[in-house]
Amino acid sequence: MLSDAAGSGAAGLAALWAARYRAGTAPGGLPDEAMLRHLMAHRSVRAYRPDPVPESVLDGAVAAAQSASTSSNLQVWSVVAVEDAERRGRLADLAGGQAHIRQAPLFLAWLVDLSRLARMGEVRAHATEGLDYLETFLVGVVDATLAAQNAAAFLEAQGLGIVYIGGLRNHPEQVARELGLPDRCMAVFGMCVGHPDPDRPAAIKPRLPQSVVLHRERYDCAGEGEAIGRYDGADEAFQREQGLASRAWSDVMLRRVAGPQSLSGRDRLREALDALGFALR
Amino acid sequence: MLSDAAGSGAAGLAALWAARYRAGTAPGGLPDEAMLRHLMAHRSVRAYRPDPVPESVLDGAVAAAQSASTSSNLQVWSVVAVEDAERRGRLADLAGGQAHIRQAPLFLAWLVDLSRLARMGEVRAHATEGLDYLETFLVGVVDATLAAQNAAAFLEAQGLGIVYIGGLRNHPEQVARELGLPDRCMAVFGMCVGHPDPDRPAAIKPRLPQSVVLHRERYDCAGEGEAIGRYDGADEAFQREQGLASRAWSDVMLRRVAGPQSLSGRDRLREALDALGFALR
Repeated sequence: MLSDAAGSGAAGLAALWAARYRAGTAPGGLPDEAMLRHLMAHRSVRAYRPDPVPESVLDGAVAAAQSASTSSNLQVWSVVAVEDAERRGRLADLAGGQAHIRQAPLFLAWLVDLSRLARMGEVRAHATEGLDYLETFLVGVVDATLAAQNAAAFLEAQGLGIVYIGGLRNHPEQVARELGLPDRCMAVFGMCVGHPDPDRPAAIKPRLPQSVVLHRERYDCAGEGEAIGRYDGADEAFQREQGLASRAWSDVMLRRVAGPQSLSGRDRLREALDALGFALR
Repeated sequence: MLSDAAGSGAAGLAALWAARYRAGTAPGGLPDEAMLRHLMAHRSVRAYRPDPVPESVLDGAVAAAQSASTSSNLQVWSVVAVEDAERRGRLADLAGGQAHIRQAPLFLAWLVDLSRLARMGEVRAHATEGLDYLETFLVGVVDATLAAQNAAAFLEAQGLGIVYIGGLRNHPEQVARELGLPDRCMAVFGMCVGHPDPDRPAAIKPRLPQSVVLHRERYDCAGEGEAIGRYDGADEAFQREQGLASRAWSDVMLRRVAGPQSLSGRDRLREALDALGFALR
């Protein structure tokens, strides 16, 4: 129904708002312009056609990524583009067996990369002790994420689909070995890229009401419980429409953060980062 | 010279590529389309006119932000919109005295927010031990950053300027008090938003050659030293053009990560996060 939602139809924004929030209408003063429609039309794609992604599109994705902000211009991120089917298969296994990593022709591993500055320091015998702090690791995570999201926006505007793969953190050391990462380099997440399979279209997932995430002047969670209750209902309706098991969002989320056993092995992330050369002081 | 670079001029992409890389030309097959031009035209704006940001634009920014991917749909982020001039002044002081936080009419503090799930767990007496792991904090950082970058893309497409403020991490506890943040909630970075001052236009900052950040199949840093040397030259030329002190990028970056003394107080981030209720197991 919303397959042309990012197009130029006059009703685009209203339909996108309805799909994203399932309540209320788009603010009157908001221009129905292409950028907002593009961003609001995002859906995670988990079914792809095999057609390769043109080389020039990868160049454009990296240019978009590099045009994002980077803390102090440190540029402490890198990306590995994986096309080899066998390597994608091994990465799929490491990420919990996600079939779309095998299926999508291009897989991008987005890296926190402090190794470049470490190498520059070695060459010049310059101290780089600042790399050992949690702060610098955090800068790398933020840099890599800003870059990746710019790439995602560009790729989706090209008619391609993407999905982020947090499962790369299930086995960080094995992923690092597979990708030949040096010390102080870690794949923070992956991204499948390809042409969406038109026979298995993805849907726009509803999100929490704006009132829950947007605070004015100071944090205020009054009314949050009721708003989340309404969202649970909207999300259940979405699940039913998609032919998925009906469940309340809050129940699923609470199970997801119940304890270390629900973290898919990522409860040992700190140990893994230590093994990869991040001291996180 | 590039003030209309995000516009529809046919030479747009070529000019943007030249400004961003200062070497080579845009790949032939790459379509000169609006999204790529918008993203490549990003520049951090540090001089603003006082005109307020319309309310509907904030609604749009939050809708764009919420439309970004979020790990497992956890949505563990929030944003505080600060317009009060005195509060912006105090935040400017806490962030190292950055004048543009006082000047821009809107300041967005982007939060890692695990407190919402903690509250949901309390109401239902459900365990939320998973919130105490580094992994879940990392999910919050990634979620907040994906959201913020979508907001940035939308705001810039509206003709507004933005700049990220990592200085919010100089004094995380004081920032949390100023914004009334609950436990397990931290401002990972801020963002100034406003109409760019046309008398003090910002420039597109050159970035590392693509060969340095993009790896094929496996990580490969062969040729990196030479490429960084060329970039040092391009960055020095940029600095001169901007009337700024001439210095090589590598020298500045190495000073920035030399040791704890170069981290603007953020060498104690781990202690601060502990005080804010993040166990980071």
